[in-house]
Amino acid sequence: MKQISDYLETNNQKFVEELIEYLRFPSVSAQSKHKIDMTNCAQWLASHGRSIGLKTKVHKTSGHPIVTLTTKQKTNGSKPHFLVYGHYDVQPPEPLELWTSSPFAPEVRKGNLFARGASDNKGQHFAHLKAVEAYLKTNTELPCDLTFLIEGEEEVGGEALVSFLKKNKRELKCEGVVVSDTGMPDLKHPALTYALRGVAALEVRIEGPNRDLHSGIYGGAIENPAIALSKLLAKMIDKNGRITVPGFYNDVIKLSAYERKQMARIPFNERNFKKLLGVKSLFGEKGFTPNEHRAARPTFEINGLTSGYQGEGSKTIVPSYASAKITMRLVPNQNAAKILRIVAQHIKKLCPETMKIKVELGHVADPYIVSPKGGLAKAALKSLKSAFGHEPVLLREGGSIPIVEHFAQILKVDTYLLGLALPDDNLHSPNEKIDLEVFKRGIKMSAHLWKNFAEA
Amino acid sequence: MKQISDYLETNNQKFVEELIEYLRFPSVSAQSKHKIDMTNCAQWLASHGRSIGLKTKVHKTSGHPIVTLTTKQKTNGSKPHFLVYGHYDVQPPEPLELWTSSPFAPEVRKGNLFARGASDNKGQHFAHLKAVEAYLKTNTELPCDLTFLIEGEEEVGGEALVSFLKKNKRELKCEGVVVSDTGMPDLKHPALTYALRGVAALEVRIEGPNRDLHSGIYGGAIENPAIALSKLLAKMIDKNGRITVPGFYNDVIKLSAYERKQMARIPFNERNFKKLLGVKSLFGEKGFTPNEHRAARPTFEINGLTSGYQGEGSKTIVPSYASAKITMRLVPNQNAAKILRIVAQHIKKLCPETMKIKVELGHVADPYIVSPKGGLAKAALKSLKSAFGHEPVLLREGGSIPIVEHFAQILKVDTYLLGLALPDDNLHSPNEKIDLEVFKRGIKMSAHLWKNFAEA
Repeated sequence: MKQISDYLETNNQKFVEELIEYLRFPSVSAQSKHKIDMTNCAQWLASHGRSIGLKTKVHKTSGHPIVTLTTKQKTNGSKPHFLVYGHYDVQPPEPLELWTSSPFAPEVRKGNLFARGASDNKGQHFAHLKAVEAYLKTNTELPCDLTFLIEGEEEVGGEALVSFLKKNKRELKCEGVVVSDTGMPDLKHPALTYALRGVAALEVRIEGPNRDLHSGIYGGAIENPAIALSKLLAKMIDKNGRITVPGFYNDVIKLSAYERKQMARIPFNERNFKKLLGVKSLFGEKGFTPNEHRAARPTFEINGLTSGYQGEGSKTIVPSYASAKITMRLVPNQNAAKILRIVAQHIKKLCPETMKIKVELGHVADPYIVSPKGGLAKAALKSLKSAFGHEPVLLREGGSIPIVEHFAQILKVDTYLLGLALPDDNLHSPNEKIDLEVFKRGIKMSAHLWKNFAEA
Repeated sequence: MKQISDYLETNNQKFVEELIEYLRFPSVSAQSKHKIDMTNCAQWLASHGRSIGLKTKVHKTSGHPIVTLTTKQKTNGSKPHFLVYGHYDVQPPEPLELWTSSPFAPEVRKGNLFARGASDNKGQHFAHLKAVEAYLKTNTELPCDLTFLIEGEEEVGGEALVSFLKKNKRELKCEGVVVSDTGMPDLKHPALTYALRGVAALEVRIEGPNRDLHSGIYGGAIENPAIALSKLLAKMIDKNGRITVPGFYNDVIKLSAYERKQMARIPFNERNFKKLLGVKSLFGEKGFTPNEHRAARPTFEINGLTSGYQGEGSKTIVPSYASAKITMRLVPNQNAAKILRIVAQHIKKLCPETMKIKVELGHVADPYIVSPKGGLAKAALKSLKSAFGHEPVLLREGGSIPIVEHFAQILKVDTYLLGLALPDDNLHSPNEKIDLEVFKRGIKMSAHLWKNFAEA
């Protein structure tokens, strides 16, 4: 590794300059005026990969192209194979007036490189590419085969990647996927994200009278649907913050003492958190910490309420109906479809006999977990520690990441999320940046990763 | 009364023809194209009054004219004085295509006279005018002085009447006001409406985070404002349909056995009622009947609910706030302002400490009651019985009637509501009508009324 370390140290400035070149492309997938920039960016990436010594291809899709860059031609499948996923498309840069420097004219200020896409996601996957470059340029044998799969539709939820995965299942068969597209708390807390929450959506509509009624003429003799809905929803969560649906927690894997200890290490400042959100105090399921509440416990949220008159002033009616949009965040090993079924059943049971009820089932995504004690996870943690010089933390993500589901379902493989974005990197906002120290250590981490993965 | 009865019998057909003439005016106060029709209608009414022998005047106002017709010039204040209130303006007739005969080309079919304004309100106050005519034309001494106060802005909530009452307080000083602008269940149930519910409005807004939050990143650690609002509202009414605010019922006058017996006489068919409203079953405060629920008991209604995302599909957020529009119907002797105060206080107390709450107080109207056992009430009931040949029922109205408040506040006088509209008279709807039998008996009732009032 000495040769590689030296190469990285010597070429650090070159890497930053190359990243700047990559960031100059306004590869905004959502804006059709940037279609040609998307193609140019994909071509540049492929060409850059070739200059390192990778076999590259720009694949046409129904939308923006997908770029693959692979070491595989050098071996013949004798080494373990890993995928690195990333995306070269970026969020629209607007509002432009809030940027200190132009979003596509990258600028270094105080150790940060500012540009749209700097950390989401060009800088993050570019770090992995630079690590491979170090192996190839120093003629150090790569202990595994790698394929970079860099798409152009992540920010627009395009379906090109899914088709591509299905079509190229065989070529993409691998031992694991590495994705650097999440976050880390700070430089002292490099992180492996090992679990994601799932989601289940439904809509409840309670129907009373066949039209809005005059509350003077009818009010008092019929139940008010908005009150009936309130009473129903009030019963869904008890005073300890527990969801009351029988069986709701049956399949939840208990957090191990190890996991809880790890979660406790994630920096969390309650005062700052409350200030950031403007809330008077926190509220969460009894017996768990805020870090656990947000990432490792299931939730029941009302996303929207609708009933009756919502305009200016008042209107003296008994509304005809009241409805609520609901989503639940789920944790391993809850099954989203099953949860949706038992919650819908329970809600129907709670409907008073005066009312009709309609429960419409919405989208679902299962939660995801990969054991933080598995071989590859341990190898990832070891690589993080080597590069950052601090004990890494284990993160759970509170939301879903669809690609992880796709890799699991189509390629039947686990994903290791090694995020290189800091909380203040302004993802999706003006003045997006990447911390150049994180970029540098990220490259180093990746260089260790392939060695550690191969040995795992 | 023999002379009067004979006059009424002989002239019944003439009365209907005169009413038809009155109904031909398209006196639609809401539509500016009918401004001249409004004036013409007012002039016709005044002129008609003069032909009977009344002193009449058309008063200019800031809006449509007010017509007064009075017997007062004949006496010098030695007799008791009563007001008869009515309005010559009518609702817009649209949609015209739903009318069987043209709204301003009155037509008699099967004992009903169809025209816009037939029962709301031209026919109803015209009946009182015809009764006075009978006295005057038969040279029967009227036992009291009467002033008809017929306005032109009832259907548009105009303020002309209030100014007029204030300006002419002295001339309008009287022993009581008679208004025929409410309803009666059917010909066998003539009715005196002796109580009205009041109203008190407020809006509750529960505020959580300073913006809608990503439910994956934050969900679980902060309370959801829509759930907090549901829990709060759920506590406002108990399972017996009682409002839980301490002191809410303190000032409610208990329904007497006499009143409850009277309310039980009002026709009510639960099956038809449920079918009409499309509800599976009724729900009301335990221990009271649907007739009582709708007119004699206070209510707490949610008129509208608003929170978060209400568009198509779902949005995985913890909404920033949730709000509810609320109105309460109040009964004698609740004080609307006091109720608003104690309910707002109670709601604020129920707000969880995680949230901010804003309670905005809205409009109020006090409930109204005149004793059904008072002298004038008894005289009214006696008149109804004489004319209709059936024991009258005592009604309470579930809504408010602003003019009653105005008479009470400005003239310090009680109002006796002797409605001559049947439930199927299509008020405010196409094919409005008045039942000619009700019109005939209404005139007779009025003829008795002045005699009975004077003797009370």
